[in-house]
Amino acid sequence: MAERGRGWARAVRGLLLDVSGVLYDSGAGGGVPIAGSVEAVRRIKASGLKLQLCTNETQATRESFVRKLRALGFDISVAQVTAPAPAACHLLRERGLRPHLLVHHDLVPEFAEIDKTNPNCVVLGDAAENFTYANLNEAFRLLIGMEKPVLISLGKGRYYKETDGLKLDVGAYMKALEYACDIQAEVVGKPAKRFFESALAELGVPAEQAIMIGDDIVSDVGGAQQCGMRALQVRTGKFRPSDENHPEVKPDAYVNNLAEAVDIILQEL
Amino acid sequence: MAERGRGWARAVRGLLLDVSGVLYDSGAGGGVPIAGSVEAVRRIKASGLKLQLCTNETQATRESFVRKLRALGFDISVAQVTAPAPAACHLLRERGLRPHLLVHHDLVPEFAEIDKTNPNCVVLGDAAENFTYANLNEAFRLLIGMEKPVLISLGKGRYYKETDGLKLDVGAYMKALEYACDIQAEVVGKPAKRFFESALAELGVPAEQAIMIGDDIVSDVGGAQQCGMRALQVRTGKFRPSDENHPEVKPDAYVNNLAEAVDIILQEL
Repeated sequence: MAERGRGWARAVRGLLLDVSGVLYDSGAGGGVPIAGSVEAVRRIKASGLKLQLCTNETQATRESFVRKLRALGFDISVAQVTAPAPAACHLLRERGLRPHLLVHHDLVPEFAEIDKTNPNCVVLGDAAENFTYANLNEAFRLLIGMEKPVLISLGKGRYYKETDGLKLDVGAYMKALEYACDIQAEVVGKPAKRFFESALAELGVPAEQAIMIGDDIVSDVGGAQQCGMRALQVRTGKFRPSDENHPEVKPDAYVNNLAEAVDIILQEL
Repeated sequence: MAERGRGWARAVRGLLLDVSGVLYDSGAGGGVPIAGSVEAVRRIKASGLKLQLCTNETQATRESFVRKLRALGFDISVAQVTAPAPAACHLLRERGLRPHLLVHHDLVPEFAEIDKTNPNCVVLGDAAENFTYANLNEAFRLLIGMEKPVLISLGKGRYYKETDGLKLDVGAYMKALEYACDIQAEVVGKPAKRFFESALAELGVPAEQAIMIGDDIVSDVGGAQQCGMRALQVRTGKFRPSDENHPEVKPDAYVNNLAEAVDIILQEL
Protein backbone atom coordinates (compact mmCIF):
# COMPACT_ATOMS: atom_id res chain seq x y z
CA MET A 1 0.00 0.00 0.00
CA ALA A 2 1.08 3.54 -0.66
CA GLU A 3 1.57 5.64 2.43
CA ARG A 4 -1.39 7.99 2.13
CA GLY A 5 -1.22 11.61 3.09
CA ARG A 6 2.55 11.63 3.61
CA GLY A 7 4.68 14.52 2.45
CA TRP A 8 5.60 12.97 -0.89
CA ALA A 9 2.29 14.00 -2.50
CA ARG A 10 2.35 17.66 -1.50
CA ALA A 11 3.14 20.79 -3.53
CA VAL A 12 3.05 19.12 -6.91
CA ARG A 13 2.60 21.09 -10.12
CA GLY A 14 3.58 18.54 -12.75
CA LEU A 15 3.97 14.84 -13.42
CA LEU A 16 6.46 12.98 -15.56
CA LEU A 17 5.13 9.58 -16.51
CA ASP A 18 6.99 6.59 -17.84
CA VAL A 19 4.86 4.91 -20.50
CA SER A 20 5.48 1.16 -20.97
CA GLY A 21 4.52 -0.57 -17.75
CA VAL A 22 2.72 2.52 -16.41
CA LEU A 23 0.18 3.49 -19.08
CA TYR A 24 0.15 0.19 -20.95
CA ASP A 25 1.88 -3.14 -21.41
CA SER A 26 3.44 -3.19 -24.86
CA GLY A 27 3.22 -6.20 -27.10
CA ALA A 28 1.79 -7.68 -30.27
CA GLY A 29 -1.16 -5.74 -31.72
CA GLY A 30 -0.10 -2.54 -29.93
CA GLY A 31 -0.36 -3.77 -26.33
CA VAL A 32 -3.07 -3.24 -23.72
CA PRO A 33 -3.76 -0.34 -21.33
CA ILE A 34 -3.09 -0.97 -17.65
CA ALA A 35 -6.37 -0.92 -15.73
CA GLY A 36 -7.32 2.61 -14.66
CA SER A 37 -4.53 4.38 -16.59
CA VAL A 38 -6.63 5.92 -19.37
CA GLU A 39 -8.94 7.45 -16.77
CA ALA A 40 -5.95 8.51 -14.64
CA VAL A 41 -4.43 10.49 -17.52
CA ARG A 42 -7.80 12.16 -18.10
CA ARG A 43 -8.00 13.14 -14.42
CA ILE A 44 -4.46 14.56 -14.45
CA LYS A 45 -5.33 16.80 -17.40
CA ALA A 46 -8.65 17.88 -15.85
CA SER A 47 -6.87 18.77 -12.59
CA GLY A 48 -4.67 21.41 -14.21
CA LEU A 49 -1.46 19.55 -13.33
CA LYS A 50 1.13 19.65 -16.09
CA LEU A 51 1.88 16.35 -17.75
CA GLN A 52 4.81 15.06 -19.80
CA LEU A 53 5.60 11.49 -20.86
CA CYS A 54 9.25 10.63 -20.28
CA THR A 55 10.02 7.42 -22.13
CA ASN A 56 12.98 5.41 -23.33
CA GLU A 57 10.76 4.06 -26.10
CA THR A 58 12.83 3.64 -29.26
CA GLN A 59 10.76 1.16 -31.25
CA ALA A 60 8.87 3.89 -33.11
CA THR A 61 8.96 7.55 -34.02
CA ARG A 62 7.22 9.83 -31.53
CA GLU A 63 4.47 10.39 -34.10
CA SER A 64 3.60 6.72 -34.46
CA PHE A 65 4.09 6.13 -30.74
CA VAL A 66 1.51 8.85 -29.99
CA ARG A 67 -0.87 7.40 -32.58
CA LYS A 68 -0.64 4.07 -30.78
CA LEU A 69 -1.29 5.66 -27.38
CA ARG A 70 -4.25 7.59 -28.76
CA ALA A 71 -5.68 4.38 -30.23
CA LEU A 72 -5.48 2.89 -26.73
CA GLY A 73 -7.50 5.84 -25.42
CA PHE A 74 -4.77 8.15 -24.04
CA ASP A 75 -5.30 11.83 -24.89
CA ILE A 76 -1.65 12.73 -25.57
CA SER A 77 0.08 14.98 -28.13
CA VAL A 78 3.53 14.60 -29.71
CA ALA A 79 4.81 17.64 -27.78
CA GLN A 80 3.99 15.82 -24.55
CA VAL A 81 6.53 13.06 -25.25
CA THR A 82 10.21 13.29 -24.31
CA ALA A 83 12.04 10.42 -26.02
CA PRO A 84 15.70 9.52 -26.68
CA ALA A 85 15.83 9.68 -30.49
CA PRO A 86 15.16 13.43 -30.85
CA ALA A 87 17.61 14.06 -28.00
CA ALA A 88 20.21 11.91 -29.78
CA CYS A 89 19.72 13.83 -33.05
CA HIS A 90 20.39 17.04 -31.15
CA LEU A 91 23.62 15.59 -29.74
CA LEU A 92 24.75 14.19 -33.12
CA ARG A 93 24.34 17.59 -34.76
CA GLU A 94 26.07 19.38 -31.89
CA ARG A 95 29.15 17.16 -32.22
CA GLY A 96 29.22 16.57 -35.96
CA LEU A 97 28.69 12.83 -35.53
CA ARG A 98 27.53 10.63 -38.40
CA PRO A 99 25.81 7.55 -36.99
CA HIS A 100 25.59 3.96 -38.04
CA LEU A 101 22.14 3.02 -36.73
CA LEU A 102 21.39 -0.24 -34.96
CA VAL A 103 17.80 0.57 -34.09
CA HIS A 104 14.27 -0.62 -34.73
CA HIS A 105 13.10 -0.24 -38.36
CA ASP A 106 10.29 2.03 -37.23
CA LEU A 107 12.67 4.45 -35.50
CA VAL A 108 14.79 5.14 -38.58
CA PRO A 109 12.65 8.11 -39.81
CA GLU A 110 13.65 10.06 -36.66
CA PHE A 111 17.17 10.22 -38.14
CA ALA A 112 16.06 11.21 -41.66
CA GLU A 113 17.79 14.60 -41.54
CA ILE A 114 21.06 13.28 -40.11
CA ASP A 115 24.09 12.61 -42.31
CA LYS A 116 24.83 8.89 -42.06
CA THR A 117 27.59 8.58 -44.66
CA ASN A 118 30.98 7.26 -43.56
CA PRO A 119 29.89 6.70 -39.93
CA ASN A 120 32.03 7.88 -37.03
CA CYS A 121 29.78 6.58 -34.26
CA VAL A 122 27.19 3.89 -33.58
CA VAL A 123 23.71 4.69 -32.25
CA LEU A 124 22.11 1.76 -30.47
CA GLY A 125 18.39 1.57 -29.70
CA ASP A 126 16.02 -1.21 -28.73
CA ALA A 127 16.36 -2.80 -32.15
CA ALA A 128 14.26 -5.87 -31.22
CA GLU A 129 14.22 -8.23 -34.23
CA ASN A 130 17.06 -6.17 -35.72
CA PHE A 131 19.32 -7.49 -32.94
CA THR A 132 20.65 -10.19 -35.24
CA TYR A 133 24.07 -11.82 -35.03
CA ALA A 134 25.02 -10.18 -38.34
CA ASN A 135 23.87 -6.69 -37.28
CA LEU A 136 25.65 -6.92 -33.93
CA ASN A 137 28.87 -8.03 -35.63
CA GLU A 138 28.56 -5.15 -38.09
CA ALA A 139 28.14 -2.55 -35.33
CA PHE A 140 31.05 -4.12 -33.44
CA ARG A 141 33.37 -4.05 -36.46
CA LEU A 142 32.60 -0.40 -37.13
CA LEU A 143 33.33 0.50 -33.51
CA ILE A 144 36.54 -1.53 -33.16
CA GLY A 145 37.76 0.01 -36.41
CA MET A 146 37.38 3.61 -35.13
CA GLU A 147 40.35 5.40 -33.65
CA LYS A 148 38.13 6.61 -30.78
CA PRO A 149 34.97 4.45 -30.81
CA VAL A 150 31.81 6.40 -29.92
CA LEU A 151 28.79 4.34 -28.89
CA ILE A 152 25.57 6.23 -28.14
CA SER A 153 22.93 4.13 -26.42
CA LEU A 154 19.29 5.21 -26.37
CA GLY A 155 18.67 4.24 -22.76
CA LYS A 156 20.33 1.41 -20.85
CA GLY A 157 17.34 -0.60 -19.64
CA ARG A 158 18.03 -4.20 -18.65
CA TYR A 159 14.70 -5.63 -19.79
CA TYR A 160 11.04 -4.78 -20.22
CA LYS A 161 7.78 -6.63 -20.22
CA GLU A 162 5.66 -7.22 -23.27
CA THR A 163 2.34 -9.04 -23.31
CA ASP A 164 4.15 -12.26 -24.28
CA GLY A 165 6.89 -12.01 -21.67
CA LEU A 166 10.11 -10.24 -20.67
CA LYS A 167 12.48 -9.01 -23.39
CA LEU A 168 16.13 -7.99 -23.19
CA ASP A 169 16.37 -4.22 -23.52
CA VAL A 170 19.00 -2.07 -25.21
CA GLY A 171 21.21 -1.96 -22.11
CA ALA A 172 22.07 -5.64 -22.44
CA TYR A 173 23.31 -5.14 -26.01
CA MET A 174 25.09 -1.95 -24.96
CA LYS A 175 27.03 -3.98 -22.38
CA ALA A 176 27.92 -6.57 -25.03
CA LEU A 177 29.44 -3.91 -27.31
CA GLU A 178 31.09 -2.06 -24.40
CA TYR A 179 32.83 -5.26 -23.32
CA ALA A 180 33.84 -6.33 -26.82
CA CYS A 181 35.34 -2.91 -27.63
CA ASP A 182 36.54 -2.06 -24.10
CA ILE A 183 34.67 1.25 -24.16
CA GLN A 184 31.94 3.09 -22.24
CA ALA A 185 28.75 4.03 -24.05
CA GLU A 186 27.18 7.46 -23.72
CA VAL A 187 23.57 7.06 -22.64
CA VAL A 188 20.89 9.31 -24.11
CA GLY A 189 17.62 8.66 -22.28
CA LYS A 190 16.69 7.74 -18.74
CA PRO A 191 18.50 7.63 -16.28
CA ALA A 192 20.84 10.28 -17.75
CA LYS A 193 20.51 13.57 -15.88
CA ARG A 194 20.57 15.65 -19.04
CA PHE A 195 17.57 13.71 -20.39
CA PHE A 196 15.49 14.28 -17.25
CA GLU A 197 16.42 17.95 -17.36
CA SER A 198 15.08 18.17 -20.93
CA ALA A 199 11.87 16.48 -19.84
CA LEU A 200 11.49 18.92 -16.95
CA ALA A 201 12.09 21.86 -19.28
CA GLU A 202 9.36 20.54 -21.56
CA LEU A 203 7.10 19.97 -18.56
CA GLY A 204 7.75 23.58 -17.51
CA VAL A 205 7.96 22.80 -13.80
CA PRO A 206 11.03 22.83 -11.52
CA ALA A 207 12.32 19.50 -10.20
CA GLU A 208 11.11 20.08 -6.65
CA GLN A 209 7.51 20.52 -7.86
CA ALA A 210 7.48 17.46 -10.11
CA ILE A 211 6.95 13.76 -9.49
CA MET A 212 8.22 10.98 -11.76
CA ILE A 213 6.11 7.82 -11.88
CA GLY A 214 7.66 4.69 -13.38
CA ASP A 215 8.05 0.93 -13.14
CA ASP A 216 11.86 0.85 -13.42
CA ILE A 217 13.61 1.23 -10.09
CA VAL A 218 16.90 2.39 -11.65
CA SER A 219 16.06 4.26 -14.86
CA ASP A 220 12.86 5.93 -13.65
CA VAL A 221 13.12 6.22 -9.88
CA GLY A 222 16.87 6.49 -9.41
CA GLY A 223 17.35 8.80 -12.39
CA ALA A 224 14.58 11.21 -11.38
CA GLN A 225 15.71 11.38 -7.76
CA GLN A 226 19.22 12.30 -8.88
CA CYS A 227 17.67 15.33 -10.57
CA GLY A 228 16.01 16.42 -7.34
CA MET A 229 12.54 15.10 -8.18
CA ARG A 230 10.36 12.84 -6.10
CA ALA A 231 9.75 9.47 -7.73
CA LEU A 232 7.19 6.71 -7.27
CA GLN A 233 7.47 3.11 -8.36
CA VAL A 234 4.27 1.45 -9.59
CA ARG A 235 3.70 -2.24 -8.98
CA THR A 236 2.78 -2.78 -12.64
CA GLY A 237 4.85 -3.50 -15.77
CA LYS A 238 8.26 -4.92 -15.01
CA PHE A 239 7.99 -4.26 -11.26
CA ARG A 240 9.28 -7.21 -9.23
CA PRO A 241 8.92 -7.63 -5.46
CA SER A 242 12.72 -7.81 -5.17
CA ASP A 243 12.86 -4.19 -6.40
CA GLU A 244 11.69 -3.21 -2.92
CA ASN A 245 15.05 -4.41 -1.58
CA HIS A 246 17.16 -2.53 -4.11
CA PRO A 247 20.53 -1.78 -2.47
CA GLU A 248 20.79 1.80 -3.75
CA VAL A 249 17.44 3.19 -4.82
CA LYS A 250 14.45 3.82 -2.57
CA PRO A 251 11.35 5.41 -4.13
CA ASP A 252 9.54 8.19 -2.27
CA ALA A 253 6.56 5.80 -2.29
CA TYR A 254 5.26 2.64 -3.88
CA VAL A 255 1.83 2.67 -5.47
CA ASN A 256 -0.10 -0.26 -6.86
CA ASN A 257 -0.63 1.52 -10.17
CA LEU A 258 -0.91 4.93 -11.82
CA ALA A 259 -4.56 5.28 -10.83
CA GLU A 260 -3.71 4.96 -7.15
CA ALA A 261 -0.88 7.51 -7.46
CA VAL A 262 -3.23 9.99 -9.13
CA ASP A 263 -5.91 9.45 -6.45
CA ILE A 264 -3.48 10.40 -3.71
CA ILE A 265 -1.87 13.31 -5.55
CA LEU A 266 -5.23 14.86 -6.45
CA GLN A 267 -6.40 14.59 -2.82
CA GLU A 268 -3.43 16.75 -1.81
CA LEU A 269 -3.99 19.49 -4.40
CA MET B 1 61.01 -9.27 -32.97
CA ALA B 2 61.12 -11.90 -30.28
CA GLU B 3 64.00 -11.52 -27.87
CA ARG B 4 66.13 -14.46 -28.90
CA GLY B 5 68.05 -16.48 -26.43
CA ARG B 6 66.51 -14.86 -23.37
CA GLY B 7 65.48 -16.89 -20.38
CA TRP B 8 61.89 -17.33 -21.45
CA ALA B 9 62.75 -20.17 -23.85
CA ARG B 10 64.80 -22.28 -21.39
CA ALA B 11 63.89 -25.47 -19.51
CA VAL B 12 60.73 -26.22 -21.46
CA ARG B 13 59.19 -29.68 -21.51
CA GLY B 14 55.74 -29.00 -22.91
CA LEU B 15 53.72 -26.49 -24.93
CA LEU B 16 50.09 -25.47 -24.64
CA LEU B 17 48.85 -23.98 -27.89
CA ASP B 18 45.79 -21.89 -28.53
CA VAL B 19 44.27 -22.95 -31.84
CA SER B 20 42.26 -20.24 -33.65
CA GLY B 21 44.65 -17.43 -34.54
CA VAL B 22 47.73 -19.58 -33.81
CA LEU B 23 47.31 -22.73 -35.91
CA TYR B 24 44.74 -21.39 -38.32
CA ASP B 25 42.29 -18.59 -39.04
CA SER B 26 38.78 -19.99 -38.78
CA GLY B 27 36.10 -19.14 -41.29
CA ALA B 28 33.87 -20.39 -44.07
CA GLY B 29 34.99 -23.69 -45.58
CA GLY B 30 36.96 -24.65 -42.46
CA GLY B 31 39.44 -21.78 -42.43
CA VAL B 32 43.08 -21.62 -43.53
CA PRO B 33 46.31 -22.63 -41.75
CA ILE B 34 48.58 -19.80 -40.63
CA ALA B 35 51.81 -19.89 -42.62
CA GLY B 36 54.38 -22.22 -41.03
CA SER B 37 52.05 -23.63 -38.37
CA VAL B 38 51.55 -27.12 -39.83
CA GLU B 39 55.30 -27.56 -40.04
CA ALA B 40 55.76 -26.06 -36.55
CA VAL B 41 53.42 -28.65 -35.00
CA ARG B 42 55.32 -31.40 -36.80
CA ARG B 43 58.63 -30.06 -35.41
CA ILE B 44 57.26 -29.88 -31.87
CA LYS B 45 56.20 -33.52 -32.03
CA ALA B 46 59.53 -34.59 -33.56
CA SER B 47 61.43 -32.75 -30.80
CA GLY B 48 59.95 -34.85 -28.01
CA LEU B 49 58.29 -31.82 -26.39
CA LYS B 50 54.83 -32.58 -25.04
CA LEU B 51 51.98 -30.83 -26.81
CA GLN B 52 48.39 -30.03 -25.83
CA LEU B 53 45.92 -27.72 -27.57
CA CYS B 54 44.14 -25.48 -25.10
CA THR B 55 41.17 -23.89 -26.83
CA ASN B 56 37.97 -22.06 -26.02
CA GLU B 57 36.53 -23.45 -29.26
CA THR B 58 32.85 -24.25 -28.73
CA GLN B 59 31.53 -24.30 -32.28
CA ALA B 60 32.03 -28.05 -32.66
CA THR B 61 32.57 -31.23 -30.70
CA ARG B 62 36.20 -32.10 -30.09
CA GLU B 63 35.87 -34.96 -32.55
CA SER B 64 34.75 -32.79 -35.45
CA PHE B 65 37.17 -30.04 -34.43
CA VAL B 66 40.06 -32.50 -34.65
CA ARG B 67 38.80 -33.78 -38.01
CA LYS B 68 38.91 -30.21 -39.29
CA LEU B 69 42.44 -29.65 -37.97
CA ARG B 70 43.62 -32.91 -39.51
CA ALA B 71 42.10 -31.90 -42.84
CA LEU B 72 44.17 -28.72 -42.63
CA GLY B 73 47.29 -30.83 -42.13
CA PHE B 74 47.73 -30.78 -38.33
CA ASP B 75 48.65 -34.16 -36.86
CA ILE B 76 46.51 -33.94 -33.68
CA SER B 77 44.42 -36.46 -31.73
CA VAL B 78 41.24 -35.85 -29.69
CA ALA B 79 43.13 -36.54 -26.44
CA GLN B 80 45.43 -33.61 -27.27
CA VAL B 81 42.59 -31.10 -27.10
CA THR B 82 41.45 -29.42 -23.86
CA ALA B 83 38.13 -27.64 -24.57
CA PRO B 84 35.40 -26.06 -22.44
CA ALA B 85 32.45 -28.33 -23.24
CA PRO B 86 33.83 -31.52 -21.69
CA ALA B 87 34.97 -29.47 -18.67
CA ALA B 88 31.46 -28.01 -18.38
CA CYS B 89 29.88 -31.49 -18.50
CA HIS B 90 32.12 -32.50 -15.62
CA LEU B 91 31.00 -29.47 -13.60
CA LEU B 92 27.30 -29.99 -14.43
CA ARG B 93 27.45 -33.60 -13.20
CA GLU B 94 29.39 -32.62 -10.09
CA ARG B 95 26.74 -30.09 -9.07
CA GLY B 96 23.59 -31.81 -10.33
CA LEU B 97 22.88 -28.98 -12.80
CA ARG B 98 20.50 -29.46 -15.73
CA PRO B 99 21.41 -26.98 -18.47
CA HIS B 100 19.44 -25.03 -20.99
CA LEU B 101 21.94 -24.79 -23.86
CA LEU B 102 22.54 -21.64 -25.86
CA VAL B 103 25.41 -23.01 -27.93
CA HIS B 104 26.37 -23.74 -31.51
CA HIS B 105 24.30 -26.52 -33.15
CA ASP B 106 27.45 -28.54 -33.71
CA LEU B 107 28.38 -28.49 -30.02
CA VAL B 108 25.12 -30.03 -28.78
CA PRO B 109 26.34 -33.67 -29.03
CA GLU B 110 28.95 -32.94 -26.32
CA PHE B 111 26.01 -32.66 -23.89
CA ALA B 112 24.23 -35.81 -25.10
CA GLU B 113 24.62 -37.62 -21.77
CA ILE B 114 23.52 -34.66 -19.62
CA ASP B 115 19.97 -34.39 -18.25
CA LYS B 116 18.48 -31.24 -19.78
CA THR B 117 14.89 -31.54 -18.50
CA ASN B 118 13.50 -28.72 -16.36
CA PRO B 119 16.68 -26.61 -16.58
CA ASN B 120 18.22 -25.05 -13.48
CA CYS B 121 21.07 -23.28 -15.26
CA VAL B 122 22.02 -21.84 -18.64
CA VAL B 123 25.17 -22.88 -20.50
CA LEU B 124 26.35 -20.26 -22.98
CA GLY B 125 28.85 -20.99 -25.74
CA ASP B 126 29.88 -19.25 -28.93
CA ALA B 127 26.48 -19.92 -30.50
CA ALA B 128 27.24 -17.86 -33.65
CA GLU B 129 24.09 -17.87 -35.83
CA ASN B 130 22.17 -19.25 -32.84
CA PHE B 131 22.66 -15.88 -31.12
CA THR B 132 19.22 -14.75 -32.27
CA TYR B 133 16.99 -12.22 -30.52
CA ALA B 134 14.53 -15.01 -29.70
CA ASN B 135 17.18 -17.36 -28.28
CA LEU B 136 18.75 -14.64 -26.17
CA ASN B 137 15.35 -13.66 -24.78
CA GLU B 138 14.62 -17.31 -23.99
CA ALA B 139 17.88 -17.77 -22.08
CA PHE B 140 17.27 -14.49 -20.26
CA ARG B 141 13.72 -15.47 -19.22
CA LEU B 142 14.91 -18.80 -17.87
CA LEU B 143 17.63 -17.11 -15.83
CA ILE B 144 15.51 -14.30 -14.44
CA GLY B 145 12.89 -16.87 -13.45
CA MET B 146 15.35 -18.90 -11.34
CA GLU B 147 15.57 -18.31 -7.62
CA LYS B 148 19.38 -18.34 -7.90
CA PRO B 149 20.27 -17.88 -11.57
CA VAL B 150 23.31 -19.93 -12.66
CA LEU B 151 24.96 -18.88 -15.91
CA ILE B 152 27.90 -20.96 -17.10
CA SER B 153 29.89 -19.38 -19.90
CA LEU B 154 32.23 -21.43 -22.08
CA GLY B 155 35.00 -18.85 -22.16
CA LYS B 156 34.60 -15.08 -22.02
CA GLY B 157 36.41 -13.95 -25.15
CA ARG B 158 35.57 -10.50 -26.48
CA TYR B 159 35.90 -11.28 -30.19
CA TYR B 160 37.79 -13.43 -32.62
CA LYS B 161 38.88 -13.22 -36.22
CA GLU B 162 37.42 -15.31 -39.00
CA THR B 163 38.49 -15.17 -42.62
CA ASP B 164 35.64 -12.72 -43.34
CA GLY B 165 36.31 -10.42 -40.39
CA LEU B 166 36.02 -10.01 -36.62
CA LYS B 167 33.10 -11.64 -34.79
CA LEU B 168 31.68 -11.00 -31.33
CA ASP B 169 32.65 -13.88 -29.04
CA VAL B 170 30.72 -15.52 -26.22
CA GLY B 171 31.98 -13.02 -23.62
CA ALA B 172 29.97 -10.20 -25.18
CA TYR B 173 26.74 -12.20 -24.88
CA MET B 174 27.74 -13.30 -21.38
CA LYS B 175 27.99 -9.63 -20.39
CA ALA B 176 24.56 -8.94 -21.87
CA LEU B 177 22.94 -11.66 -19.76
CA GLU B 178 24.95 -10.77 -16.67
CA TYR B 179 23.76 -7.19 -16.88
CA ALA B 180 20.13 -8.04 -17.63
CA CYS B 181 19.93 -10.50 -14.71
CA ASP B 182 22.33 -8.65 -12.37
CA ILE B 183 24.44 -11.79 -11.92
CA GLN B 184 28.01 -13.01 -12.45
CA ALA B 185 28.62 -15.88 -14.85
CA GLU B 186 30.92 -18.77 -13.99
CA VAL B 187 33.51 -19.12 -16.73
CA VAL B 188 34.59 -22.58 -17.88
CA GLY B 189 37.48 -22.21 -20.30
CA LYS B 190 40.39 -19.81 -20.61
CA PRO B 191 41.31 -17.68 -18.61
CA ALA B 192 39.85 -19.67 -15.68
CA LYS B 193 42.64 -21.11 -13.54
CA ARG B 194 40.88 -24.45 -13.13
CA PHE B 195 40.75 -24.85 -16.90
CA PHE B 196 44.48 -24.20 -17.37
CA GLU B 197 45.18 -26.66 -14.54
CA SER B 198 43.21 -29.35 -16.40
CA ALA B 199 45.15 -28.60 -19.57
CA LEU B 200 48.45 -28.85 -17.69
CA ALA B 201 47.35 -32.17 -16.14
CA GLU B 202 46.57 -33.47 -19.61
CA LEU B 203 49.88 -32.12 -20.91
CA GLY B 204 51.61 -33.95 -18.04
CA VAL B 205 54.11 -31.16 -17.35
CA PRO B 206 54.28 -28.78 -14.35
CA ALA B 207 53.45 -25.11 -14.93
CA GLU B 208 57.03 -23.92 -14.61
CA GLN B 209 58.16 -26.22 -17.44
CA ALA B 210 55.34 -25.29 -19.82
CA ILE B 211 54.79 -22.39 -22.21
CA MET B 212 51.40 -21.20 -23.43
CA ILE B 213 51.30 -19.68 -26.93
CA GLY B 214 48.22 -17.69 -27.94
CA ASP B 215 46.88 -14.65 -29.75
CA ASP B 216 44.63 -13.40 -26.91
CA ILE B 217 46.42 -11.15 -24.47
CA VAL B 218 43.91 -11.74 -21.66
CA SER B 219 42.52 -15.26 -22.10
CA ASP B 220 45.72 -16.92 -23.27
CA VAL B 221 48.60 -14.88 -21.91
CA GLY B 222 47.06 -13.47 -18.72
CA GLY B 223 45.33 -16.73 -17.79
CA ALA B 224 48.43 -18.90 -18.29
CA GLN B 225 50.69 -16.54 -16.36
CA GLN B 226 48.30 -16.61 -13.41
CA CYS B 227 48.88 -20.37 -13.31
CA GLY B 228 52.63 -19.90 -13.11
CA MET B 229 53.34 -20.63 -16.77
CA ARG B 230 55.31 -18.57 -19.22
CA ALA B 231 53.19 -17.23 -22.06
CA LEU B 232 53.91 -15.83 -25.51
CA GLN B 233 51.66 -13.69 -27.68
CA VAL B 234 51.80 -14.32 -31.41
CA ARG B 235 51.29 -11.46 -33.83
CA THR B 236 48.75 -13.49 -35.84
CA GLY B 237 44.97 -14.04 -35.47
CA LYS B 238 43.26 -11.34 -33.46
CA PHE B 239 46.55 -9.75 -32.29
CA ARG B 240 46.40 -5.96 -32.48
CA PRO B 241 49.37 -3.62 -31.98
CA SER B 242 47.51 -1.97 -29.07
CA ASP B 243 47.77 -5.29 -27.20
CA GLU B 244 51.41 -4.41 -26.61
CA ASN B 245 50.24 -1.57 -24.36
CA HIS B 246 47.84 -3.68 -22.31
CA PRO B 247 47.60 -2.10 -18.85
CA GLU B 248 47.75 -5.38 -16.92
CA VAL B 249 49.16 -8.22 -18.98
CA LYS B 250 52.72 -8.44 -20.34
CA PRO B 251 53.69 -11.61 -22.23
CA ASP B 252 57.06 -13.23 -21.52
CA ALA B 253 57.76 -12.52 -25.19
CA TYR B 254 56.13 -11.55 -28.47
CA VAL B 255 56.71 -13.72 -31.53
CA ASN B 256 55.61 -13.05 -35.07
CA ASN B 257 53.96 -16.44 -35.32
CA LEU B 258 54.03 -20.00 -34.00
CA ALA B 259 56.84 -20.98 -36.36
CA GLU B 260 59.14 -18.33 -34.90
CA ALA B 261 58.31 -19.40 -31.34
CA VAL B 262 59.12 -23.02 -32.15
CA ASP B 263 62.41 -22.02 -33.84
CA ILE B 264 63.57 -20.28 -30.69
CA ILE B 265 62.34 -22.93 -28.25
CA LEU B 266 63.94 -25.76 -30.20
CA GLN B 267 67.29 -23.90 -30.31
CA GLU B 268 67.25 -23.83 -26.50
CA LEU B 269 66.50 -27.56 -26.03
